[in-house]
Amino acid sequence: MQPYELTLDAAAQAIRNRELSPVDLVDSVLERVARVDPRLGAFVTVTADRARESARRAEREIAAGVRRGPLHGVPVALKDLIDVAGLPTTGSSRVRAEHRATADSAVTARLEAAGAVIVGKTHTHEFAYGLVTPQTVNAWDPGRVAGGSSGGSAVAVASGTATFALGTDTGGSIRTPAALNGVVGLKPTYDLVPRDGVVSLSWSLDHVGPLTRTVTDAGLVLSALTGREPYTVDSEIPGLRVGVPRNHYFERVDAEVESTVRTAIARLEYLGARLVEVEIPMARYIQATQWGLMVPEATAYHERTMRTTPELYGPDVRILLEAGELVSAGDYLRAQRAQTLMRREWLRLMKSVDVIAAPAVPVTAVPTGQESVAWPDGTTESVADAYVRLSAPANITGLPSLTVPAGLDSAGLPIGLQLIGRPYAEDVLLRAGRASERSAVFAEIRAGA
Amino acid sequence: MQPYELTLDAAAQAIRNRELSPVDLVDSVLERVARVDPRLGAFVTVTADRARESARRAEREIAAGVRRGPLHGVPVALKDLIDVAGLPTTGSSRVRAEHRATADSAVTARLEAAGAVIVGKTHTHEFAYGLVTPQTVNAWDPGRVAGGSSGGSAVAVASGTATFALGTDTGGSIRTPAALNGVVGLKPTYDLVPRDGVVSLSWSLDHVGPLTRTVTDAGLVLSALTGREPYTVDSEIPGLRVGVPRNHYFERVDAEVESTVRTAIARLEYLGARLVEVEIPMARYIQATQWGLMVPEATAYHERTMRTTPELYGPDVRILLEAGELVSAGDYLRAQRAQTLMRREWLRLMKSVDVIAAPAVPVTAVPTGQESVAWPDGTTESVADAYVRLSAPANITGLPSLTVPAGLDSAGLPIGLQLIGRPYAEDVLLRAGRASERSAVFAEIRAGA
Repeated sequence: MQPYELTLDAAAQAIRNRELSPVDLVDSVLERVARVDPRLGAFVTVTADRARESARRAEREIAAGVRRGPLHGVPVALKDLIDVAGLPTTGSSRVRAEHRATADSAVTARLEAAGAVIVGKTHTHEFAYGLVTPQTVNAWDPGRVAGGSSGGSAVAVASGTATFALGTDTGGSIRTPAALNGVVGLKPTYDLVPRDGVVSLSWSLDHVGPLTRTVTDAGLVLSALTGREPYTVDSEIPGLRVGVPRNHYFERVDAEVESTVRTAIARLEYLGARLVEVEIPMARYIQATQWGLMVPEATAYHERTMRTTPELYGPDVRILLEAGELVSAGDYLRAQRAQTLMRREWLRLMKSVDVIAAPAVPVTAVPTGQESVAWPDGTTESVADAYVRLSAPANITGLPSLTVPAGLDSAGLPIGLQLIGRPYAEDVLLRAGRASERSAVFAEIRAGA
Repeated sequence: MQPYELTLDAAAQAIRNRELSPVDLVDSVLERVARVDPRLGAFVTVTADRARESARRAEREIAAGVRRGPLHGVPVALKDLIDVAGLPTTGSSRVRAEHRATADSAVTARLEAAGAVIVGKTHTHEFAYGLVTPQTVNAWDPGRVAGGSSGGSAVAVASGTATFALGTDTGGSIRTPAALNGVVGLKPTYDLVPRDGVVSLSWSLDHVGPLTRTVTDAGLVLSALTGREPYTVDSEIPGLRVGVPRNHYFERVDAEVESTVRTAIARLEYLGARLVEVEIPMARYIQATQWGLMVPEATAYHERTMRTTPELYGPDVRILLEAGELVSAGDYLRAQRAQTLMRREWLRLMKSVDVIAAPAVPVTAVPTGQESVAWPDGTTESVADAYVRLSAPANITGLPSLTVPAGLDSAGLPIGLQLIGRPYAEDVLLRAGRASERSAVFAEIRAGA
């Protein structure tokens, strides 16, 4: 096994035991980048020199007995919306081609303090405003989408070009690419992880969080990002009340996705969880609320650059930003009110269960260029709508949500189980996720290398 | 001295000492209503029978040793936006002519639990959307405006037709009529007093609070409304840091108002306060933020009735509600962001002082029909803008604000001193208000009866 293949937890243990040098680890990862990234397109920038220097510093510190915790000396990739002092934050947009961040974002500073080694910035759908990440291909099938908008981060983690990564999630942008590339994605509780120094898409819905290879790894990164005690990573779930939605989450869902997720839920029951059928509140308002908040907030954020350099935006993003100018105050405040009501109703729902289990996305990675999904009920849906639909409730409500690989479909593409928890109950979510992960049969990482 | 002339505190003491019967008190107040209200127009509805029955119940309870506190048996008038089960809540609008409240508002329930005697519902500018209250005349001069939108409540308290009253304040609607009619008005900290069952004008800015004859009375009512211990009503202020704004609050202010307010502030210094010159942050954003929040939120609240029965609204209010449909999401969210920033900046400012002292309104009650105010600098301003201008910061920031009579201008019209405090520091605000009140020479209540 090569160092680049190690989980964060395994790498941390090997470094702690002096069996692995951070320099060897980063060299292995950078070599992997050189070998596979030209084909995968996960990275905007690879900061090889800087990464080697960080790794050498980590090595010296560890030799001197300075221990910064499990991230010390471990390679991380950051979605290119996250400021790193001295580097551009391009948002994968020509608008930001000349940008240089003057200071670290809050999460960058915390990762640096924890001794993590930044190997590069990863691609996003331009300014995170899309679910595809067109510059990047799926780690399991180069003819399919990586998912977005944290597509580069997911593909890097899946393909061994970063031991872990950070992404952002406004309508599923951590969880969708994580699910489509067979890795773990955690969208924490709203505002648990600070967003200072991270480019915003929609401040009512934005979250920053980790993409990792295991649930344990997600807990380790979350601890570093929040400064809290290590998040529980045992996998004991007897008595855990798992809500299984009777509406919304299993509607217009691919049959293989549904059966794989239902099997994963049955495994949780076998491990001692108690399944409770639940009704998702205000389901028919989800889409309007999500887009009703996101579209005008994104437009407001980009107001100045849309006035000065609209031609630098890609056509899909420019159209969405222009559409935002036409939204009325009434529509926006109705979306805000719906968000308030939806939060209230979900909090009520979450009194009856500890977590909710559902598919992460209704369909596995679609072929590049496919624009819509046709459902057996005769309806069709844009790919963006399909990928947002099951993610949006956790963005609107701010509840923490985790996606964990649950199996593969017959085309060999990964399927994600989504777990949604109570505010700040990431420990419960991670425990349930770990139980699911340990009970599943995992395919090996098989990125095309 | 007739019972209707008593302050709440004096009435409560007399009732407690069995020197005054609640029935005699309410009879005195109802007789006063019959005598002066046909001319003043403060009341939409007088609930004489219900009030007498409440007073008799209070009398029986007190005779039986049941003591509900200082409001027990004391007459109160409620602005007609506040639901009382079984009564219409008209909002002084034809739209609500057929309305009947099915339940008490939260504040009504608290007043009833405290044994207060509801004598009637008072006029507001239609749905609180104006600063004039055209149905009501000023208690000191029938040719002048009562101020609004809680004009009926202020005039009732000033003219002896209610011992105290409740109003609502979205852009000064408690403090403006209180100042113009020479009574005390308290806008508490945002959300300290519950708004359930109160018609909304703009939920980001709405507050419910008392109008009273003294600062002590305001503290008694606030205790009943919040269920908290009696608010401090001593008047010791040595060491209190009083911020005196160098900008905004003394700009475009009538010379007599300015000199009276500055004299009141000098008296606070004489009593031991330490004056600190302060800079009001983001002053040029106040008006845009206030109207930018209020206009679309009011339109959203009235959306259904504006669609079905627009002709039932008065022309001034209808135009404002129609204008709200034209506000863009971008303008609304910019107002929300300005509100967030303004709150932050004011909280920073309030670290350096305990209260801020300023005029309540820049000009005393204007003659009925006057639409604008001309300033010596050559600018003119609508009456509504003038009356909102100095009140709005406390609505936007949610900080508690108190107006206390500070003297009279040469036309014999009352001038209000405004005190603004830290969140939930109503006790400090009331202490400073009481110090100011005690040091001022007060004109007798001289409502035209």
